[in-house]
Amino acid sequence: MIVPHERHVGRLLTYVGTPLLLLLGYDLVVVVAYKVLHWDWVAMPHIPLALFGSAIGIIVAFRNQSSYARWWDARTLWGSVINNSRSLARQVTTVMMPLNDSETGELETMQRRLVYHQIAFAHALRQHLRGLEPWEELTPLLKESELSGLREERNVPLAIQQQMGALLRECQVRGWIDIEHWRALDGNLDDLTDAQGGTERIKNTPMPKQYDYFPQLFVHIYCTLLPLALVTSMGWLTPLGSTLVGFIFLALGKIGRDLEDPFENSIYDVPLTAITTTIEVNLRQLLGETELRQTEKPVKGVLW
Amino acid sequence: MIVPHERHVGRLLTYVGTPLLLLLGYDLVVVVAYKVLHWDWVAMPHIPLALFGSAIGIIVAFRNQSSYARWWDARTLWGSVINNSRSLARQVTTVMMPLNDSETGELETMQRRLVYHQIAFAHALRQHLRGLEPWEELTPLLKESELSGLREERNVPLAIQQQMGALLRECQVRGWIDIEHWRALDGNLDDLTDAQGGTERIKNTPMPKQYDYFPQLFVHIYCTLLPLALVTSMGWLTPLGSTLVGFIFLALGKIGRDLEDPFENSIYDVPLTAITTTIEVNLRQLLGETELRQTEKPVKGVLW
Amino acid sequence: MIVPHERHVGRLLTYVGTPLLLLLGYDLVVVVAYKVLHWDWVAMPHIPLALFGSAIGIIVAFRNQSSYARWWDARTLWGSVINNSRSLARQVTTVMMPLNDSETGELETMQRRLVYHQIAFAHALRQHLRGLEPWEELTPLLKESELSGLREERNVPLAIQQQMGALLRECQVRGWIDIEHWRALDGNLDDLTDAQGGTERIKNTPMPKQYDYFPQLFVHIYCTLLPLALVTSMGWLTPLGSTLVGFIFLALGKIGRDLEDPFENSIYDVPLTAITTTIEVNLRQLLGETELRQTEKPVKGVLW
Amino acid sequence: MIVPHERHVGRLLTYVGTPLLLLLGYDLVVVVAYKVLHWDWVAMPHIPLALFGSAIGIIVAFRNQSSYARWWDARTLWGSVINNSRSLARQVTTVMMPLNDSETGELETMQRRLVYHQIAFAHALRQHLRGLEPWEELTPLLKESELSGLREERNVPLAIQQQMGALLRECQVRGWIDIEHWRALDGNLDDLTDAQGGTERIKNTPMPKQYDYFPQLFVHIYCTLLPLALVTSMGWLTPLGSTLVGFIFLALGKIGRDLEDPFENSIYDVPLTAITTTIEVNLRQLLGETELRQTEKPVKGVLW
Amino acid sequence: MIVPHERHVGRLLTYVGTPLLLLLGYDLVVVVAYKVLHWDWVAMPHIPLALFGSAIGIIVAFRNQSSYARWWDARTLWGSVINNSRSLARQVTTVMMPLNDSETGELETMQRRLVYHQIAFAHALRQHLRGLEPWEELTPLLKESELSGLREERNVPLAIQQQMGALLRECQVRGWIDIEHWRALDGNLDDLTDAQGGTERIKNTPMPKQYDYFPQLFVHIYCTLLPLALVTSMGWLTPLGSTLVGFIFLALGKIGRDLEDPFENSIYDVPLTAITTTIEVNLRQLLGETELRQTEKPVKGVLW
Repeated sequence: MIVPHERHVGRLLTYVGTPLLLLLGYDLVVVVAYKVLHWDWVAMPHIPLALFGSAIGIIVAFRNQSSYARWWDARTLWGSVINNSRSLARQVTTVMMPLNDSETGELETMQRRLVYHQIAFAHALRQHLRGLEPWEELTPLLKESELSGLREERNVPLAIQQQMGALLRECQVRGWIDIEHWRALDGNLDDLTDAQGGTERIKNTPMPKQYDYFPQLFVHIYCTLLPLALVTSMGWLTPLGSTLVGFIFLALGKIGRDLEDPFENSIYDVPLTAITTTIEVNLRQLLGETELRQTEKPVKGVLW
Repeated sequence: MIVPHERHVGRLLTYVGTPLLLLLGYDLVVVVAYKVLHWDWVAMPHIPLALFGSAIGIIVAFRNQSSYARWWDARTLWGSVINNSRSLARQVTTVMMPLNDSETGELETMQRRLVYHQIAFAHALRQHLRGLEPWEELTPLLKESELSGLREERNVPLAIQQQMGALLRECQVRGWIDIEHWRALDGNLDDLTDAQGGTERIKNTPMPKQYDYFPQLFVHIYCTLLPLALVTSMGWLTPLGSTLVGFIFLALGKIGRDLEDPFENSIYDVPLTAITTTIEVNLRQLLGETELRQTEKPVKGVLW
Repeated sequence: MIVPHERHVGRLLTYVGTPLLLLLGYDLVVVVAYKVLHWDWVAMPHIPLALFGSAIGIIVAFRNQSSYARWWDARTLWGSVINNSRSLARQVTTVMMPLNDSETGELETMQRRLVYHQIAFAHALRQHLRGLEPWEELTPLLKESELSGLREERNVPLAIQQQMGALLRECQVRGWIDIEHWRALDGNLDDLTDAQGGTERIKNTPMPKQYDYFPQLFVHIYCTLLPLALVTSMGWLTPLGSTLVGFIFLALGKIGRDLEDPFENSIYDVPLTAITTTIEVNLRQLLGETELRQTEKPVKGVLW
Repeated sequence: MIVPHERHVGRLLTYVGTPLLLLLGYDLVVVVAYKVLHWDWVAMPHIPLALFGSAIGIIVAFRNQSSYARWWDARTLWGSVINNSRSLARQVTTVMMPLNDSETGELETMQRRLVYHQIAFAHALRQHLRGLEPWEELTPLLKESELSGLREERNVPLAIQQQMGALLRECQVRGWIDIEHWRALDGNLDDLTDAQGGTERIKNTPMPKQYDYFPQLFVHIYCTLLPLALVTSMGWLTPLGSTLVGFIFLALGKIGRDLEDPFENSIYDVPLTAITTTIEVNLRQLLGETELRQTEKPVKGVLW
Repeated sequence: MIVPHERHVGRLLTYVGTPLLLLLGYDLVVVVAYKVLHWDWVAMPHIPLALFGSAIGIIVAFRNQSSYARWWDARTLWGSVINNSRSLARQVTTVMMPLNDSETGELETMQRRLVYHQIAFAHALRQHLRGLEPWEELTPLLKESELSGLREERNVPLAIQQQMGALLRECQVRGWIDIEHWRALDGNLDDLTDAQGGTERIKNTPMPKQYDYFPQLFVHIYCTLLPLALVTSMGWLTPLGSTLVGFIFLALGKIGRDLEDPFENSIYDVPLTAITTTIEVNLRQLLGETELRQTEKPVKGVLW
C-alpha cells in the first residue's frame, strides 16, 4: 500500500508513464502528418467522440468501482482476522483456569501455545495468499512436531486451525475451560475460517476476464481515434486535448488493474505484512510479553 | 470461469463475434447505399444520437452492475459453502471423543461418515444447480442404504443435510459430543442451508425478463440507426464510428447476459467443479487422508 | 414473475403499449401540424433537450435501481423463509427423541404438527402479504382448535409462530428436546420473524410518493417536448427520433413501477405461490411423506 | 409518510411551489428585459450549460441516493424494533412456566409487565426521536413506581430496557425461565439496543452540512444562469426550457432534504406512530387481549 | 462535525476559499490577456471540454461516494460502540447477583468497576484514534494498579478489554454470574473488539493514494483549461462560466478530502468527544449515578 502524506512525485509521474508517453508520441505523429505532411486523410473530424466517451465511461466507471470494492473487501476481511485474533487471545488469556495450583505452569504453556498458533495462523494465511513458504515465520512459534505435521498440507492455515481446535478440546477435557467458553472460542475460530475463505475467494476468483480485456481495448481504440478527430479543429494543440483526455482513462484503467488483485506482492497490495505484525504485537502483549517486534514502517513510501 | 493471464485471443475476438460482423456488414451496406447508389433517403443526420445514447446507457449500466452482483453473490455463497464445510469438518475431527477406548473405531467411522456426507453435500448441490445427476460422485462417499434413501428426493442436498442432522443427534446420544458441540455443529448446518437457499435463489429467480429484453432491443435499434445518422458526415468512414460504438454496447450486453446466470454449465459459470474439488481435498486432509484428488486445472483457459 | 426463455412476443410488445401508441400518435400530429398545416409555432428547435435528458436520467436511473433493490430484497427475504423453514424442519425431524418407546407415536404427531405449522406459516404469510384469506390452505394443516384461535387474529402468521413457540416449549417440558435444542429451534423462529417483518416493511412502506410522481411527470413533459424540438430538423422522420427516445424512458418507468411493489398479485410479483409450494414439498419430504404436490409451473409464461 | 394511491394534486403541485413560482417569475423578467426592453447584456448565450448541468448532476444524484438510503435505513431499523418486539413477546408468552400452580397469577402478571414494558419501549423511543414527552403513552403501561424512576432519565427507552433486564433476571431467579431462555430473551434486548442506537445515529448525525449547502447553492446559480443562456435562442419560449430544467433540480433537491431527516415530525417522516401502534396491537394480541386500538389510518393522505 | 441549522456563512464562504480566489484571479488574467493585450494564442476554443468534464466526473463522483461511505462507516462503527456499551452495562447492572447478603458491597464495587472500564474503553479508543494520550480521562475511572498496567501498552483500549475479560471471569468464579451470562457479556466484548478493529481499519488504511492525487490533478488541469476554452465565446463573461464550473469540482474534491479521514481532529471528524460523553452519561445513569456531565454542545458550530 502506498502511504499517503509522503508524495513521491517520481512514482506518481511514472504511474501511467509509458502508455502516456506512447500516447503523446502518437498524438504528435498525427499532428505532424496533418500539419506538416498535409496528409489530410488522417483527419476524421466527424468521429462521434462524445458517443464513444459516454459508452466507455459506463464500463470504466463500473470497473473502477468493482476493483475498489474488492480491495476494500480484502482489507475488511483482514480486519476480521485482526478482530477475531484479539478476541480469541483475550478469551484464552482471561478465561482459562487451572483446577489446582500444580497445573498453573501447564496451563500457561497451553495459553502460550494457543496464542502462538493464532499468530502462526495470521502469518501462514498471509504467505498462503502471496504464494510463499510460511516456514521461516512459523518455526519460532510452533513445536517441531506441529510443524512437521503441517509440511504435507496443501492449506497450512486451515491445518493450523485444526490444531487449535484439538488444543481447545484438550483444554475442555482438562477442565480448564467450561463448555460455554469452548463455544465462544470455537465461534471465533469459525469467524476466522470465514475470513480465510473470503480472502481466498478474492485471490482465486478474479474479476471476469471480460472486464479486464474490454475496457482496455476500448480505451486503446478511443485514444487512437482521439487525435484523428481533434486535429482538424485543434491543429498543433491536438495533444493538449487528446493526451489529457486519454490520460484520465489510462489512469482510471491502471488504478482499477492495480486494486483488483490485492494479494499479488505488488506495491498496491493490502499491507499484509504490517497487518500480521500488528496481530503479532497485540497478541504478544496480551500474553504479557514485553520484547516485541517493531510495527512495520513504510519502505520508500510503501507499506507492505 | 475464464482464467486470466492466459489470453486466448481467438476466444476474445469471437466473444461478440457474430453480432459484430453483422453490424459491420450492415454499416457497409448503408455506406454503399449512400455513397455508391446515392440513396439519399438512408441518411438521417438529425437523429438525436446523444439522447439515445445516454438513455440507453442508464439501462445498460444498470444491467451490467446487477449481473455482476448476481455473479459475485453466487461466488460468495459458494465461499460460504467452503467456509462452513471446513468449520464443520474441523469440529467433527477435533471435538468428538469416545466414552471409552472400545468405541474409538466406531467413532472414527462416524467422523468419516460425517465428513464424507459434507463432501457429498457439496457435490450434490453443484449437480443440483447444474441440473445434473449426482450419483456418480456420491456413490463412493455414502453407504448404499443412504444412497437409496436419496434417490426419491427432489432436493438431494437438503436430504443429505437431514441425514447429517440425524448422525449428529446420534453422536450426542452416544455421548461423543456435548450438547454445546451439537449447537456449534448444527449452527454450521444452518449456515449451509442458508448458502444452499441463496444459490437456489439465484438459479430460480432470474433477472426480471424486462431487463433482458429491453436493453437488447434498445441496443439493436441504436445500432440500426447509428450508420444512418453518421453516414452524411462520415461517409466511407461511417463503420469506424458506427461499428465501434455499437461494439461497446454489444459487448456490455453480452457480458451482462453471460454473468447473470452463473450456474448454467457455460464457460462463464462460477467454477463449481473446482470449488467442490477444493472442498473435497481440504476435508480429506482434515481427516488425515493422503491420497487426494488433484485440484482442478483450467481446460483450454476455462476453469469449470 | 414472468419466466424467461419463453418469449411471449405479444406480452412484450404490449408492455408499454398504450402510452407508446399515444406518444406515436402525438408525434404524428405534431409533424402533420408542422409539415402539412405549416403551423410553424409548434416547432421549438432550441429547447435544451440534452439538459432535460440528463436531469431526468438522474431520477429515472435512481428509481430503477431502488425498485429492483426492493424486488430483490423481497425475494431474498422469502429465501430466508425457505432456508429457516428447512433448518427448522431438519431440527424437528432429527433432534426430537422420546424418553421411552411408548411415546414414539405422540412424538411423531408432535413432529408432524410442528412441520405442518411451519408450512402453514409460509402459506399464511403469502396470503397476508397479498391481502387474501389463508383458511383454504390452512385447514388441512392445522387442528380445528388451532384454526379457530387464529380467526380473530389481525396477523395470522405471527399467531402461528406463537403456537409453534408453545409447542416447542411443550417438547422441552416433555423432555423430547434439550434446552440447547430449544435455543436452536427458537433461533430459527426469530429469523422467521425477522423475514416476516422484512416482507411487511416492503409491503407497507412503498417508495416515497415523490419518486413515483415526479419521474412520471418529467418523462411526460419530456415526451411532449421531444417532437416540438425535433420537428424542424427531422421533419417527417420526427417520430423515429421522438418516439424511440420516449420509448426508453417509458419502458424504464414502467419496469420501475412493476417491480417496486412485489406483493401485489401482479404478474411481476415475486412468485410467492411457487415458493410456498416448494417449502411445502421440501418439508413434507423431510417428514418422509411421499404424496406430494407438484411444484408450480408457469401459466402462460407467468410463475405465480 | 405520504400515502400513495391517493393523489392529493394540491399537495403535489405545491411541493416545490414557491421556488418554482419565483423561478418562473425571474425567467419572465429576463425575457421581458431582453425582448421588450432590449437589454441585450442580459443574454449570455455562451454560458457552458451542459458542463454545469453534468457537474451539478453528480452532487445532486449523490445527495438523492444518500438521503433515500438514510430514510430506508431508518425504516429498516424500526422494522428491527417490530421484529424483536414480536420475538420477545412470543418468548415471554410461551416460555415462562410456573414452578407450581399457586404462582400462575404472579407469572401472568410478570408476562404482562414484560410485554407492556416492550410496548412502552417502542412508544418511548418514538417520542425520544421526535423530541417529545412520552408520559401520556407510558402511564397506562407501567407502574407508578416504574414511571417515577424514569422521570429523571435522559434516555427513557434505555432505562426501560434496564427495567426489563431486571425483570428477566427476576424470572430466572424465580425459576420461571431457564438460563438458555434468559439468553434468548437477552439476545432480543441486545438487538433492540442496536436498533435504538441506529435510529439515534440517524437522528443525531445529519448528512454533512456541505452536502446540504452546496447542492442548493449550485442549483440556485444554475437556475439563475439558465434563462440568460437560453433567451437568445428561445426568446419568448425561454421559461419553457429554463423553468422546466430548473424544476427537475429543485424537485430533486427538495426530495433529498425531505427524506434525509426521517424523524422530524414532518409529513415525510417514517410513520412512527403507525409502526408503534402496530407493535402495540401485535403484542396485546400475543397476550390474548381482545380490546385493541385501531391501527393508524392516513390523515389527509399522510400516515404519521 | 459541523452542526446544521446554524449557518456560519463565513465558514461556508471560506470553505473552498483560497483555491476559488486563485481560480478567479487566473480567469481574469486570461480574459485581460485576450481582450486587452490581444494575446490571441491564449484562446483555445476547440479544447474538448465536454469530453474532459465527463471523464473527470467519473473519478470525482466515485471519490465522493467512497469518502462519504468511509465517514458513515466510521459513524456506524462508533454507533456499535455505543450500542454494545449500553448492552454490556445493562447486563452488568441487572444480571449480577450476590451469593449472600454479605457480598452486596463487593458486588456493587465490581459492577461499578466493570462499567467504569467500559467508559474508559470508549475514551481510550477515541484518544487512540486521535493519536492523543488517554490518561487524563482514565485516571478518575480506573484504579492506580490498573492504570499502571496500561502505560506500557501500545494498544490501550485492547488492554482495557483484557482487564474486563479478567473481571468477568472473576465474577463467574465468584458465582455472581452464570456461565450463560458470561457468554452474553463476552459476546458484547467481541462486538466491541470488532468495532475497535473497524475504526482502526479506517484510520490506518486510507483511500488508495491514487484516488487522492489523480482527481486533484485532473481538476486542476481542467480548471486551467476552462478559461482558455471559453474566452473566445464568452469574452469578459469568461469567469462566470469558468470559475463557476471549477467551483463545483473544487467543492466536490474538498468535501471528499474532508470526509475520507474521519478521525483526524479536524472540524469534519465524526464527533467522537460528543459520542464518548453520551456513552459516559448513559452508563453512569444505568449505574444509578445522578451527578452527570453535560452532553457536549457545539462550539462555534462544530461538535467535537
